[in-house]
Amino acid sequence: MSDINKVVLAYSGGLDTSVIVRWLQDTYKCEVVTFTADIGQGEEVEPARAKAKALGVQEIYIDDLREEYVRDFVYPMFRANAIYEGEYLLGTSIARPLIAKRLIEIANETGADAISHGATGKGNDQVRFELGAYSLKPGIKVIAPWREWDLTSRETLMAYCAERNIPVDFAGKKKKSPYSMDANLLHISYEGGNLEDPYWEPEEDMWRWSVSPEAAPDTPTYIELGYENGDPVTLNGEALSPATMLETLNKIGGDNGIGRLDLVENRYVGMKSRGCYETPGGTIMLRAHRAMESITLDREAAHLKDELMPRYAKLIYNGYWFSPERRMLQAAIDESQAFVNGVVRLKLYKGNVVVVGRKSDNSLFDEAIATFEDDAGAYNQKDAEGFIKLNALRLRIAANKGRSQL
Amino acid sequence: MSDINKVVLAYSGGLDTSVIVRWLQDTYKCEVVTFTADIGQGEEVEPARAKAKALGVQEIYIDDLREEYVRDFVYPMFRANAIYEGEYLLGTSIARPLIAKRLIEIANETGADAISHGATGKGNDQVRFELGAYSLKPGIKVIAPWREWDLTSRETLMAYCAERNIPVDFAGKKKKSPYSMDANLLHISYEGGNLEDPYWEPEEDMWRWSVSPEAAPDTPTYIELGYENGDPVTLNGEALSPATMLETLNKIGGDNGIGRLDLVENRYVGMKSRGCYETPGGTIMLRAHRAMESITLDREAAHLKDELMPRYAKLIYNGYWFSPERRMLQAAIDESQAFVNGVVRLKLYKGNVVVVGRKSDNSLFDEAIATFEDDAGAYNQKDAEGFIKLNALRLRIAANKGRSQL
Amino acid sequence: MSDINKVVLAYSGGLDTSVIVRWLQDTYKCEVVTFTADIGQGEEVEPARAKAKALGVQEIYIDDLREEYVRDFVYPMFRANAIYEGEYLLGTSIARPLIAKRLIEIANETGADAISHGATGKGNDQVRFELGAYSLKPGIKVIAPWREWDLTSRETLMAYCAERNIPVDFAGKKKKSPYSMDANLLHISYEGGNLEDPYWEPEEDMWRWSVSPEAAPDTPTYIELGYENGDPVTLNGEALSPATMLETLNKIGGDNGIGRLDLVENRYVGMKSRGCYETPGGTIMLRAHRAMESITLDREAAHLKDELMPRYAKLIYNGYWFSPERRMLQAAIDESQAFVNGVVRLKLYKGNVVVVGRKSDNSLFDEAIATFEDDAGAYNQKDAEGFIKLNALRLRIAANKGRSQL
Amino acid sequence: MSDINKVVLAYSGGLDTSVIVRWLQDTYKCEVVTFTADIGQGEEVEPARAKAKALGVQEIYIDDLREEYVRDFVYPMFRANAIYEGEYLLGTSIARPLIAKRLIEIANETGADAISHGATGKGNDQVRFELGAYSLKPGIKVIAPWREWDLTSRETLMAYCAERNIPVDFAGKKKKSPYSMDANLLHISYEGGNLEDPYWEPEEDMWRWSVSPEAAPDTPTYIELGYENGDPVTLNGEALSPATMLETLNKIGGDNGIGRLDLVENRYVGMKSRGCYETPGGTIMLRAHRAMESITLDREAAHLKDELMPRYAKLIYNGYWFSPERRMLQAAIDESQAFVNGVVRLKLYKGNVVVVGRKSDNSLFDEAIATFEDDAGAYNQKDAEGFIKLNALRLRIAANKGRSQL
Repeated sequence: MSDINKVVLAYSGGLDTSVIVRWLQDTYKCEVVTFTADIGQGEEVEPARAKAKALGVQEIYIDDLREEYVRDFVYPMFRANAIYEGEYLLGTSIARPLIAKRLIEIANETGADAISHGATGKGNDQVRFELGAYSLKPGIKVIAPWREWDLTSRETLMAYCAERNIPVDFAGKKKKSPYSMDANLLHISYEGGNLEDPYWEPEEDMWRWSVSPEAAPDTPTYIELGYENGDPVTLNGEALSPATMLETLNKIGGDNGIGRLDLVENRYVGMKSRGCYETPGGTIMLRAHRAMESITLDREAAHLKDELMPRYAKLIYNGYWFSPERRMLQAAIDESQAFVNGVVRLKLYKGNVVVVGRKSDNSLFDEAIATFEDDAGAYNQKDAEGFIKLNALRLRIAANKGRSQL
Repeated sequence: MSDINKVVLAYSGGLDTSVIVRWLQDTYKCEVVTFTADIGQGEEVEPARAKAKALGVQEIYIDDLREEYVRDFVYPMFRANAIYEGEYLLGTSIARPLIAKRLIEIANETGADAISHGATGKGNDQVRFELGAYSLKPGIKVIAPWREWDLTSRETLMAYCAERNIPVDFAGKKKKSPYSMDANLLHISYEGGNLEDPYWEPEEDMWRWSVSPEAAPDTPTYIELGYENGDPVTLNGEALSPATMLETLNKIGGDNGIGRLDLVENRYVGMKSRGCYETPGGTIMLRAHRAMESITLDREAAHLKDELMPRYAKLIYNGYWFSPERRMLQAAIDESQAFVNGVVRLKLYKGNVVVVGRKSDNSLFDEAIATFEDDAGAYNQKDAEGFIKLNALRLRIAANKGRSQL
Repeated sequence: MSDINKVVLAYSGGLDTSVIVRWLQDTYKCEVVTFTADIGQGEEVEPARAKAKALGVQEIYIDDLREEYVRDFVYPMFRANAIYEGEYLLGTSIARPLIAKRLIEIANETGADAISHGATGKGNDQVRFELGAYSLKPGIKVIAPWREWDLTSRETLMAYCAERNIPVDFAGKKKKSPYSMDANLLHISYEGGNLEDPYWEPEEDMWRWSVSPEAAPDTPTYIELGYENGDPVTLNGEALSPATMLETLNKIGGDNGIGRLDLVENRYVGMKSRGCYETPGGTIMLRAHRAMESITLDREAAHLKDELMPRYAKLIYNGYWFSPERRMLQAAIDESQAFVNGVVRLKLYKGNVVVVGRKSDNSLFDEAIATFEDDAGAYNQKDAEGFIKLNALRLRIAANKGRSQL
Repeated sequence: MSDINKVVLAYSGGLDTSVIVRWLQDTYKCEVVTFTADIGQGEEVEPARAKAKALGVQEIYIDDLREEYVRDFVYPMFRANAIYEGEYLLGTSIARPLIAKRLIEIANETGADAISHGATGKGNDQVRFELGAYSLKPGIKVIAPWREWDLTSRETLMAYCAERNIPVDFAGKKKKSPYSMDANLLHISYEGGNLEDPYWEPEEDMWRWSVSPEAAPDTPTYIELGYENGDPVTLNGEALSPATMLETLNKIGGDNGIGRLDLVENRYVGMKSRGCYETPGGTIMLRAHRAMESITLDREAAHLKDELMPRYAKLIYNGYWFSPERRMLQAAIDESQAFVNGVVRLKLYKGNVVVVGRKSDNSLFDEAIATFEDDAGAYNQKDAEGFIKLNALRLRIAANKGRSQL
């Protein structure tokens, strides 16, 4: 274990990763570089500096990655209308590759030969961090303390803290929740505790980012989202940066009881797990993007996107953001977005996101053809006969040869 | 045109299809058999008998197809979690093959050599009726008056009625809406009129099957759906037949403001069209089925279903229910449903369908493994390292050879 | 029919399209512009000029499109390893969009309001020409004489020629074959005649571009193909332009009995049809490209390509080259080809194309890891245990719950 | 390591697995049950009995699994036209689940608590054996000596033999090859040695099951394969059991120089590896099955199969035969095969498998429609216009709105 000289740790400033700092120092006799990112988790990151210093860390990185996160990760993913297993908006998954990328950049800058993180050996995050890291720097060493150490219960962990003088109040406020939580600009997640019974309904006070539909205002909120090349760029006519857009939509959505999810998902490591999520802005963006596409995207492009989407979502869920296959799919998706421009009007009301209008200079909705009224010859109804006849030909031949489809 | 002797018409009893009866008699000098089905459209079908008689029809079929419809069409489709273009629950599409099938059965019983329907040449329904018919009886002739006649405006149609003594009040109540509507047990649809502007929000009184979320009760309704082999069989513990189940869920859902959709879809004939839909029961069933699958379906089976779904939905939307490729997909889907048994608990509140619990004797959710607590060795966290290392191997080799994934 | 002023005809100089010139002049009282392209069909195109003149045509286009054809159509398609229905290399399909594109360009240049072609109403080519044309110029009119006229038998056609003084020797040599043939740089095809019995083996003298395997040399020919970004750029070390490359490979392949295909395919218009094809150069290029990819392409990129390929091939077969969905797939495919560089060594012998070597500076084949010998720690075999354990986890849980996979 | 009482070993009778017998006895102090299967590898299995006895084994299983192998594994796979990465016919992959299944059956019969195999930690076979075993008996323990022991060089292995009195001539004839070989009724494979250079052409005397095309007869061999429900059941009119069919086709194919493959494949464990394969009968069966399908399978069923195939092949390659997702795909595939009946005529000549005829009572090839001659109205060419017009509609609308597809 003496072959590690310096390790970059994804450091939250919380108790667990503070223990990891010390454990790395003790176990590997190596220098620890901490890296704390603001990706919109809703907690101050600056306090992590003093905690890291107190642990003897000399190289401390604290970065505001919010704009990069939304612009280069969240937005490209939303172009795909990505949903994992029909429900999950990938709020944790999409944040991990950015952390991995920054860990590797810092390893390069500081000459570190390893990275470390606080994810457990049962979850998806270890996979996402490590696949990202290996893809960007194949020779990097990875230390995943939760897979190595024996501090597997709260008691042993506390004992370790006591022994090493790690202040337990590092744990912070968040840990007073009975749930394991994680947050970034796209969502906040809850796992563990009573949620481990999938028949158990979470109590109201678990949720932190949204009011309940019941508690939301009795009058709806209308908003207009403006799109360019598949990305939301204006809200009610005002241009917003990616991070500001998502922050604002989180606020508006949360105020209207939007974006709660309660589901059982299939982890890449092979087990099912219960998760609850709040994704207010993402929920709005998903509906809005589909609505924008509904008038601007060609039918077959849309269908191809729909068929590729589950695969794309799975790649991100499983941690393959930095992979050739994700890049291929992204190239196909991005190719489709050149004309996804315009405005979507939405009504937000007690948990509902209702699309009530869409318009675009690039609209393919052709009233002259679609109308139930006289179309002045824009569409020749007689064409439909030949269309149907030839589409039916193979079926008729088969039926003629005695094949039944009943 | 003298080669048609007898034609079976899908007859609603409304004005348009009543005109068609007369037009067929006049134009083809043929006998007309009318067929009127109760598929849950919410209107009496028996009155069609007198109207048909008044038009001189001698063979009149009036069938209650509600149970067959839900059991053999709706339920198999819901096993697939089918959604067209991310939004549409295929409420019109799935009813058409049943009508086509019954038209052909009646043609066989009555010795008719043709079928006819009242769908226009611009829509999907003509395709669905005719593909179904051709697939089941390849030599059948199809008469689609809207593609042939010149009664293309309300005026010419009325003039025709006046000339032939067709009572205009055949139009019935439904036509007082400014929208073109269609309904069956799965949904009611609205098209045309102001909806032809996709930026226009429909007025509240358009909707017929549901109250608005605003008008829905202030207290939530909880229900439990019991599943067997992927189909809902009990509601709050009581066994319900397929049609009764859907009727009941429509009622409960509609009362809670659930199931409204407003979208622009891509028709098979090549144009975009605006449609509004109310699918209260279907919206509940879709969420419930996914929730049931979430604890009972294997991960890769679920993912395969998700990847096949858009294609399956497209087949149904385009009218290929009676096709070898739909049967193949159905075989795959049905193969996956043997263990989709159990109970889903749902909270319905002002437009929201919230899954709040799921349980099953066939659950694959393994608390012993999934737990954040000590798992007593059920899962060896060290396995994750090898798992990640080998999954990363190809990425590391590529990176070693200088390929960047940024 | 008086609304056509000028029509651009895809003119081969043969009898059928010569008749079409006259028929268009007679029927539409319009000016006809002829367009004859050299796409490597192996016949002089210049003689078409005199024939067109003799028919009174004033605007005559004769273009050598061979380089554009291979560079912009054949090569992009081969990057996808496109095969239709497991066998067909799309030799006819891929030539059509280029013809459509040039027809539209000439229509734009000459102010023509229509295009015309000599494809029948039963085949795929009409679809490919017309979809291409409509996609590039949506208001263009299309005249497809074979779908309109009554010259449907050889006799009526000959009578028409006699009546209008069209020299019948326009038919040329090619028509002495009992087969309907078509050729371009990628292949020559045979249809009709005895081939309409799928159990009938074509006689040896049908084939024109290749010797039989029996008649091919008794000693093999070795060649080396050099690739850049997925395209073949050198043959035995010598740089060749796209058209020259394909011409040369056709010659070498044909001399070695390579590239004959005899199959029954499914046309887009709904029927099955028997076709025989000679694609000597294409057959070599397909094997070589896959071999080049086998050492340079990432596994998951390769698998994604394989899963997308049938769909891509179908798009081209059905005539959707100029479509958003083809562009999306092309974007994904091209994204994958940046490192498909290197050399493939092939042995050609009596119909066989045998890959006997591949090498590349971008090879991902890592001998140090792949070796059966001691790998000096490049790969840790113990990682496999965790890899297998976690991949098996979902299967074990299911088995534990009593599910059998037998 | 004392917790293993009895282990069932997949025992070839060769040196490596003989060493494993002793190593298991020594290391785990457990009883070893040997299992040797005849799956058509072309070597006597009975001699394994004496060798096992000499090693002190008391429970010895020697089974002839050839018919089960072809009937229940090879034939279902060939219904899918499965090819991995465009080239590989999965000859090794498909044999592994059968071995896994039998290992588990014997474990159940003998009360063993573990299985063991001689596959290395670098290859796919360990994955296939173990996934199969875990899927069938989730609590089984697996011992993979090559991942555990330190006998990683030939020298240490020989030293171990000397020390434990294991007769080195157990190695048998096969090991005199410089290649690592593996065989079963479907194929024989070669890996390692000089093949580790992908640019190196294997010498002629490596190949064991086929003559070279050069050495094959100068006159072709014609055969007729009869199919029922997608499986070959007669050869030249004579009914043959599955194993006899494959053995016979191997002989005929091998005699005609058919079925050699030389490729670089992507292993599931993450590396590329060079493999050479001889699959004479399988190569014939693949071409024949596709030809049989070409006249009997509906177009869209065929295309769906083609799109699912790469995924199906990957599942088998990766070891997921006993999985819900393979069963789902198999259900879809098998659903399509009911009418894949008839006869395919093939010409075999110096490495070429040429389809020269196909016929079937279930043929969908309709000469009356397909003919280039007058079809007496079976097909109305005018239908094509409407077909094209509506298929083009979306493209025309887009072009009208200024979108270019160039």
